[in-house]
Amino acid sequence: MNPQIVTFLIKCPDKKGIISALTGFFFKEGFNIISAQQYTNSLEGKFFMRIRLTSDDSVAISKNQLENKFSDLAKSYQITWKVDYGSKKQKVAILVSHTSHNLYDLLYRHREGELNCDVRMVISNHQKLKSVADMFGVPFHYAPVTAETKSEQENELTRLLDSHKIDLIVMARYMQILSAGFIDRYQGKIINIHHSFLPAFQGANPYKRAYERGVKLIGATAHYATKDLDEGPIIEQGVERVTHECTPASLKKIGADIETLVLAKAVNFHLNNQVIVDGNKAIVFPETGE
Amino acid sequence: MNPQIVTFLIKCPDKKGIISALTGFFFKEGFNIISAQQYTNSLEGKFFMRIRLTSDDSVAISKNQLENKFSDLAKSYQITWKVDYGSKKQKVAILVSHTSHNLYDLLYRHREGELNCDVRMVISNHQKLKSVADMFGVPFHYAPVTAETKSEQENELTRLLDSHKIDLIVMARYMQILSAGFIDRYQGKIINIHHSFLPAFQGANPYKRAYERGVKLIGATAHYATKDLDEGPIIEQGVERVTHECTPASLKKIGADIETLVLAKAVNFHLNNQVIVDGNKAIVFPETGE
Amino acid sequence: MNPQIVTFLIKCPDKKGIISALTGFFFKEGFNIISAQQYTNSLEGKFFMRIRLTSDDSVAISKNQLENKFSDLAKSYQITWKVDYGSKKQKVAILVSHTSHNLYDLLYRHREGELNCDVRMVISNHQKLKSVADMFGVPFHYAPVTAETKSEQENELTRLLDSHKIDLIVMARYMQILSAGFIDRYQGKIINIHHSFLPAFQGANPYKRAYERGVKLIGATAHYATKDLDEGPIIEQGVERVTHECTPASLKKIGADIETLVLAKAVNFHLNNQVIVDGNKAIVFPETGE
Amino acid sequence: MNPQIVTFLIKCPDKKGIISALTGFFFKEGFNIISAQQYTNSLEGKFFMRIRLTSDDSVAISKNQLENKFSDLAKSYQITWKVDYGSKKQKVAILVSHTSHNLYDLLYRHREGELNCDVRMVISNHQKLKSVADMFGVPFHYAPVTAETKSEQENELTRLLDSHKIDLIVMARYMQILSAGFIDRYQGKIINIHHSFLPAFQGANPYKRAYERGVKLIGATAHYATKDLDEGPIIEQGVERVTHECTPASLKKIGADIETLVLAKAVNFHLNNQVIVDGNKAIVFPETGE
Repeated sequence: MNPQIVTFLIKCPDKKGIISALTGFFFKEGFNIISAQQYTNSLEGKFFMRIRLTSDDSVAISKNQLENKFSDLAKSYQITWKVDYGSKKQKVAILVSHTSHNLYDLLYRHREGELNCDVRMVISNHQKLKSVADMFGVPFHYAPVTAETKSEQENELTRLLDSHKIDLIVMARYMQILSAGFIDRYQGKIINIHHSFLPAFQGANPYKRAYERGVKLIGATAHYATKDLDEGPIIEQGVERVTHECTPASLKKIGADIETLVLAKAVNFHLNNQVIVDGNKAIVFPETGE
Repeated sequence: MNPQIVTFLIKCPDKKGIISALTGFFFKEGFNIISAQQYTNSLEGKFFMRIRLTSDDSVAISKNQLENKFSDLAKSYQITWKVDYGSKKQKVAILVSHTSHNLYDLLYRHREGELNCDVRMVISNHQKLKSVADMFGVPFHYAPVTAETKSEQENELTRLLDSHKIDLIVMARYMQILSAGFIDRYQGKIINIHHSFLPAFQGANPYKRAYERGVKLIGATAHYATKDLDEGPIIEQGVERVTHECTPASLKKIGADIETLVLAKAVNFHLNNQVIVDGNKAIVFPETGE
Repeated sequence: MNPQIVTFLIKCPDKKGIISALTGFFFKEGFNIISAQQYTNSLEGKFFMRIRLTSDDSVAISKNQLENKFSDLAKSYQITWKVDYGSKKQKVAILVSHTSHNLYDLLYRHREGELNCDVRMVISNHQKLKSVADMFGVPFHYAPVTAETKSEQENELTRLLDSHKIDLIVMARYMQILSAGFIDRYQGKIINIHHSFLPAFQGANPYKRAYERGVKLIGATAHYATKDLDEGPIIEQGVERVTHECTPASLKKIGADIETLVLAKAVNFHLNNQVIVDGNKAIVFPETGE
Repeated sequence: MNPQIVTFLIKCPDKKGIISALTGFFFKEGFNIISAQQYTNSLEGKFFMRIRLTSDDSVAISKNQLENKFSDLAKSYQITWKVDYGSKKQKVAILVSHTSHNLYDLLYRHREGELNCDVRMVISNHQKLKSVADMFGVPFHYAPVTAETKSEQENELTRLLDSHKIDLIVMARYMQILSAGFIDRYQGKIINIHHSFLPAFQGANPYKRAYERGVKLIGATAHYATKDLDEGPIIEQGVERVTHECTPASLKKIGADIETLVLAKAVNFHLNNQVIVDGNKAIVFPETGE
């Protein structure tokens, strides 16, 4: 196998000997394990692992052989798994409406090589942020939508996303609710940023409601989109202290900086294969210092 | 007037000249203004002020005269106000059930002179924490309660609280819902600690629900108790990061430290006359470096 | 006077009656006080105030008259003061070297109208970030420097800055040490971001030293540049938790996000007239909810 | 082997196959691995592991046999290791001077069973905190010290500590500098709390110096004591925001709450075998959700 970093994400029922079996398997095939992060949910009897391997000349088998052999092991332990060879960057589409802070941030990180992906397009139901996409040289697609044209517009989105083989859709303050059908099609592949620390202030106008409730902290939440609005697996959250002096407008400004960081972190975790989704939860393994 | 620090808390409709009128008033009476914190809610046209004064020989008027004169000013500006001469400590009762961390913390601070009050009693519906009250030499009252005896028990509480002229009731994880009548009687005088960052996880079992929702942050909220459970004015909130590794039990442990700090801060703010309640919100003026 | 917001920043020895005198002065001239923030350092007997006024038809005097009258008052209280009518935006120059995150962030905020200023130029000792300035349509000046050409280069900077009447110089990771003469010339007008929570890790390579020391938190500090390197008045600081897994490279990445937010906040505080410098300290008044 | 949780802490040069060898070893002996946390410092070629095992009837070997067998493996990988069977609580001595907040906190946690240890004694160079030890029923030893009697006093401490076979010495604001000889004798067994975020404000009076420097954050650091004052391996740090309003006295009060939490966390990490010391650094494995 060519020199490369191979990442396995693994999920299975917890069973005695599982760690030894897994690490033994990769060792026998000649891999060097550079990190082996594991999480046992003993309340629910579940085991999760993220294992990072380097291959070199001592790895004799091909990718196909590796996957076949691993499949055999997986069967005996009822393992659900995913492998990434780091050989090609994930293709990303960013969906936006009017709000620009997350878009600037993602595009700057992308331009500077800090997001390990290929941002293929920005899609918006408004023209407003075209100039931002243009600045960064990323194609911009205008896809307006009304209540009447929603299903047509989603068809157009689907056509766009699929023709570019998009791997990840980032809703960077895309203020539209996607249909259940659309979300199903891209299950586990849509990350949304919500402008509150969920489950507080689910739904519309969280900053206004935060003002009205008189909270002393506001926050933001990045999560996978699911059919239930704002209820998908939470990847990352952040908060900031606020005071009675804050208006809905200043909360929005303070919140923008939280949203920016939280979404960037979540997208990074996803792209670096740090996340395993289990039901309504996201297990997020910390970055290792390889 | 004897040398002392006098604190006015002031609330009125916003009006041109209000700050000048207020500071001018106190200056003319010979006071030295050591801090004048003010907050204008211009969205709602409201003005709030916390003003701290020192009196000395140059203050010729008595407390009565001061209050009478100030009443005249107050009328012309529709001011609601409160004055504290710092001459006597507030009398405090702490209500607990089984959970001890807030109680230890409040009693240790009280013993060390860090809570500017006189903790007169601990009241509990269980015997469990009697030994903690005993350690600190604070009288303990056992007031068991069942669904049937609730109103009787509240009557007993009322008798206890009133006979000691209690100024502040701290619900330090008192896991009972107080009746609307009881809360009415002590309006603005009951501080509760809720073990979540409200409005998330209002009601029972917030840590279990936080586990189930897979949040990445947990928190605690200190608020004035009102008839609507967990919806009173928020005085202080705190949060801590958590991970997927956390169980409901470890969330509870992490949360305990947040609850401890948040409640102690809120009680301090209240005792130091830093809080003005306005409808469902608490304006909390920061401590000044006098 | 035309309708506008006028901000006074005031510093003087503490004296009985000062608040009343100041608020009375502005009231008599017909101003409406929209916020009056004050800080008394009673350890050192100093008084500081930030007062925000709106003027309207009822303000009869001109700017000149206002300043003359205020000067009289200032003399009797030994007041040092500054007034801003908000009528023209401050002109800003950003100095950079190789590192881009602060530059992107400041230029995005500027473009979106979130920095109340006019970014006139980006100056760098390297060509590398020209493309970033170009993207945002901000003039870029290349001013290379070596040990030998340092004083010449600073002369060129001075010529550039003065010909554009620059009000504020932001060192957005400009990795050069400015001469005492240069700093003197722009005293109180240079904001620097240092990549550690000062006074820890003053000087070079803070992230490498943080790694070597094994700290569990890293941070960033925005401060006014003074002749003593990294010892100027601190405007804002931020921190983030790190773990033993972090390498110098990952600390640098985590730190970049802290630097970005901390510098943006500090620049904002300065531009909004929230800062009064007193010796080696910066008094930073919080934003008010006007 | 009786049912119990066995924890191995392991340190060795990084080598291909190490994880597989270690997990394989324990699996073959019949253990169930409940968590296997590992950290590879690839910059320095070092490998660290914390492995938690449950034993049951299927574990045929005794503790002695286990340790002998593991020693063989350890030799071939140059492993330094420690094993804990959780069968007896560590014996702890707390050293204090005048300051009480850390002492209350540690004793309350101990009393409530939240510190997995046996606090055997409180030692102080002052009588002041005897009453606190008494409240919690922990023996108090008064060991006054002057410059002249320092070595005698340390001999007395040593006699006390050794006669009770103390495993861990917690310096809970013990404001004396211990001699190199004393520290050597208890290497890796003394945890100190320093009242600043190290390396800022090493040495005396950190809050006063924080006030003078005008920092916007203060903190606390728990570390193992070494001969170089305040330079030992950092276990945990915390910070809190402060403002220009803070005086040295209020910084001290705010700091006390940080010190309390940071020290309690560090002691917990140590007692739960979460820490491996490597030179001047402490690797702290996060708690797992077993």
